[in-house]
Amino acid sequence: MNTFDLSTYLKRQQDIVDTALDNWLPKPQGPSRRVIEAMKYSVMAGGKRVRPILFLAGAQAVNGDQEALLPVACALECIHTYSLIHDDLPAMDNDDLRRGKATCHKVYGEAIAILAGDGLLTYAFELMCRPELREKISLPLLNEAIFVLARAAGVSGMVGGQTADILMEGQSVDPETLSFIHACKTGALIEASVEMGGLLGEGNDEEIYHLKMYGKSLGLAFQIIDDLLDVEGDQELLGKPVGSDDKNQKATYPALFGIKETKKKAQELLEKALSELTSFGEDADPLRAIARYVVERDR
Amino acid sequence: MNTFDLSTYLKRQQDIVDTALDNWLPKPQGPSRRVIEAMKYSVMAGGKRVRPILFLAGAQAVNGDQEALLPVACALECIHTYSLIHDDLPAMDNDDLRRGKATCHKVYGEAIAILAGDGLLTYAFELMCRPELREKISLPLLNEAIFVLARAAGVSGMVGGQTADILMEGQSVDPETLSFIHACKTGALIEASVEMGGLLGEGNDEEIYHLKMYGKSLGLAFQIIDDLLDVEGDQELLGKPVGSDDKNQKATYPALFGIKETKKKAQELLEKALSELTSFGEDADPLRAIARYVVERDR
Repeated sequence: MNTFDLSTYLKRQQDIVDTALDNWLPKPQGPSRRVIEAMKYSVMAGGKRVRPILFLAGAQAVNGDQEALLPVACALECIHTYSLIHDDLPAMDNDDLRRGKATCHKVYGEAIAILAGDGLLTYAFELMCRPELREKISLPLLNEAIFVLARAAGVSGMVGGQTADILMEGQSVDPETLSFIHACKTGALIEASVEMGGLLGEGNDEEIYHLKMYGKSLGLAFQIIDDLLDVEGDQELLGKPVGSDDKNQKATYPALFGIKETKKKAQELLEKALSELTSFGEDADPLRAIARYVVERDR
Repeated sequence: MNTFDLSTYLKRQQDIVDTALDNWLPKPQGPSRRVIEAMKYSVMAGGKRVRPILFLAGAQAVNGDQEALLPVACALECIHTYSLIHDDLPAMDNDDLRRGKATCHKVYGEAIAILAGDGLLTYAFELMCRPELREKISLPLLNEAIFVLARAAGVSGMVGGQTADILMEGQSVDPETLSFIHACKTGALIEASVEMGGLLGEGNDEEIYHLKMYGKSLGLAFQIIDDLLDVEGDQELLGKPVGSDDKNQKATYPALFGIKETKKKAQELLEKALSELTSFGEDADPLRAIARYVVERDR
């Protein structure tokens, strides 16, 4: 067992990402100032920066230049936040609270919330093409990374997963559809984050593949644990009403397989994720520690 | 005066774009099939393909390879259609009809309509990174084009313009804000379309600049004429309720300056657009004819 201290690491990386977000997000000004304020409100509403941190940890695992890659880390958080804003809308999950704070549409109204989501989604791709990034990262890698990001966010990823989730509300769901929802809705962007870290950190094909597969297992574990916490959790810790997924009769792993089986599945996914990292050295310790933390966290 | 036949040209280009859209849009399948159906419904609901045609005409003006650029033409139509779907939502302009057909949310419900817009916006960037495109277009140009597209679609473009438009509803608008709304909401993507044509058609810097400025004038003219048609137009021709902008008390050019002044302004913009093309040869005839058509159209 090594001496890697995860909580110090996470705190430091979170600060780095928060500072980068503050630098890289557009400044509220002009006639569109209100939508930029709404974008910043949701981005700065206290996220754990899981995806940017995983991305940077992926880059570190192949000895990449994390500093140069910060705009990409910000792009990932923009995509994640856009999906939260749109998922919370009245026409979707209709949530008033997110991370213990009022959701974007509760503060800014529905129209601005829709636009804030659109703005963040678009801004992610603007960030991926910033001249500052082009100076440091080779264009074929950057182009491939934009492709990976777009696929993870789109109909074969997050949009597809949320669609299936919405359509399945109140219906009994088979394990295959549940896997699709999990893999797409949350899994796709987590997988893409780690893969993009390996890619833009200039890892070789084998390394990138293992990082991608690590991300795939971790993403599934993350969603399963989220579902579990929603059943077992405590409203104060989670910052949203306990059982809100159950209220909307959403498809969840514990609902389908029970709590015991769900915990066993999460443990298996953790072991699978760790096994992808066997050929990596100490530089992959953050990824190892994050995987353990994701499965063992209580919020 | 040359013998260029615009209506034959537009019909042919529209067919080419429609065929390309049919080829390049995702096929409805799997648990996310419904959102893909909604995306296709709105894309195929009879648009005039103004932006893809302008893009291809921009490429033609610098003797670029139009065939190779069809995925980009499709990306532009995806962005345009996403903006229509979201603008039509109840929380935004609340329109039931678009081009004479039921709007996306009337057919598929609000949740799927929001996701269809998100899916199209994201898919545009996926298209821009398709391997088939990378094989034929140099990566620096492609990367720059993605940047131009993201900026035109985002808070400094369409999202910003729609924000200002929504916030100004029912209020008196000064000419400066109206210019911002016009330039961003409709103008930005039209300008970007022609600019991207010059860029990806491998024009030189001066050519790209003139095409961009042509697009800027044309985009403004396009919006002004749209406003004018909404005042003077006929419901059957337009496919949406006449005066619907007026119903929502939207800021429009005719409302602020009167019909006569508006027509004069459109004519000035036409002349400005044409003047940008003086150094181009016959290859720019489609752009010249389109500019005249846009200002003189009755729907």
